[in-house]
Amino acid sequence: MQNYKLTIAYDGTNYHGWQMQANARTVQGELTRVLTLLDHRAVTLHGAGRTDAGVHAEAQVASVFLQHEFAVDELRDAVNGNLNRDLRIMRVELADSSFNARFSAKEKTYRYVICTAPVVRPADFRYVYHYRGTLDVAEMRRAADLLIGQHDFSAFTVAANETEDRVRRLTRLDIEEDGHRIRITAAAEGFLRYMVRTIAGTLIEVGRGRRSAASVGAALASRQRREAGPKAPAHGLTLVQVDY
Amino acid sequence: MQNYKLTIAYDGTNYHGWQMQANARTVQGELTRVLTLLDHRAVTLHGAGRTDAGVHAEAQVASVFLQHEFAVDELRDAVNGNLNRDLRIMRVELADSSFNARFSAKEKTYRYVICTAPVVRPADFRYVYHYRGTLDVAEMRRAADLLIGQHDFSAFTVAANETEDRVRRLTRLDIEEDGHRIRITAAAEGFLRYMVRTIAGTLIEVGRGRRSAASVGAALASRQRREAGPKAPAHGLTLVQVDY
Repeated sequence: MQNYKLTIAYDGTNYHGWQMQANARTVQGELTRVLTLLDHRAVTLHGAGRTDAGVHAEAQVASVFLQHEFAVDELRDAVNGNLNRDLRIMRVELADSSFNARFSAKEKTYRYVICTAPVVRPADFRYVYHYRGTLDVAEMRRAADLLIGQHDFSAFTVAANETEDRVRRLTRLDIEEDGHRIRITAAAEGFLRYMVRTIAGTLIEVGRGRRSAASVGAALASRQRREAGPKAPAHGLTLVQVDY
Repeated sequence: MQNYKLTIAYDGTNYHGWQMQANARTVQGELTRVLTLLDHRAVTLHGAGRTDAGVHAEAQVASVFLQHEFAVDELRDAVNGNLNRDLRIMRVELADSSFNARFSAKEKTYRYVICTAPVVRPADFRYVYHYRGTLDVAEMRRAADLLIGQHDFSAFTVAANETEDRVRRLTRLDIEEDGHRIRITAAAEGFLRYMVRTIAGTLIEVGRGRRSAASVGAALASRQRREAGPKAPAHGLTLVQVDY
């Protein structure tokens, strides 16, 4: 058995997220179907991050053991030949048997993109959240700075989150402004469910002047979901990098 | 009556080109439907370039006389609110009554994009022609240089082209290489039908080593369609600018 590391890109628009489901088209489901076909046996694909429905990836990582030995580029091309063009294996590498895309991940980086222009270009609408108006980026940055570091992020995940340990260490939360485009980049070893989208949604409320930066620090300290803002729409979010 | 200048962007994937047709969804057809609705009368929309089915635009220009006086941003938003997100009016300006988007155009610029990487990213597949392999860009540039200037371009348009005057002045034909991405930019006051795609297809043959740069000059001189290469696929082509 050979362990393979797959780097995967997808437009999440037409997928019900990463995780396999019985009656829905998902990224893991599509890849598992094709890899099972190629390896003539049911395979198990481990993904670094379980992206939600509608979320995109430029470099999701997955690992899979296959009984057949494939040349890496041949495996890449054989899988791609059986997928829609909105889902691609960008790269295949041989991995040690100890490698697991989920448990070996050291850091994941997500990007949330907001377009504040009056009109979103047709090439962009799938990948940006359209907020018409002005956002106070300086105040958003002050709020973001309060979230960086190790905290209990209970306020920024689903209220019914059953994960007992909701402490995560946010190593990066940058906000770049480039014309009408605002990019929020968040990095951490791991994120809670909806955490990036809830952070983005809360920062957007700050940018709109609906709440202060200080209130974001207070929401964090409260550990109450209701104290943070709404989660921003899925389609603005992209998993851009997984580091091992 | 007020004349309006519309700057329009579209992803041509799901349109049967610019020009209105009875039983097909076209860009001119969609815009005419919405403008007719807003102006309560049948309107006539003049477009700068009649892009083929599948061809995109970043800044197509159209003009239209409307009986109602609209604030330019309100007209833009009202039209966009009635269109799919793959077709947008980016800007509306008031125009003199002498302005006609087609006849007033001084120069049009098209871009053809080729991706030579093993895998095309999901965000790009609608907008690039995928050629897996190496293209000899230096030789393509030598061929392109032979086409710049004023020539009879009969070899680079449909054989049955009924246009009597097939002389056009190509003011620009640049080839840029940026990693696995090759961009051909062509500018002229006017182009013949399929001219940019036939030039791109012929230059790709040069890049592949199937024909020499000199043979492109010979094809031009022959004025015979069969002497040039095939037309490149529509989806790699984008109308990027119209100058007045």
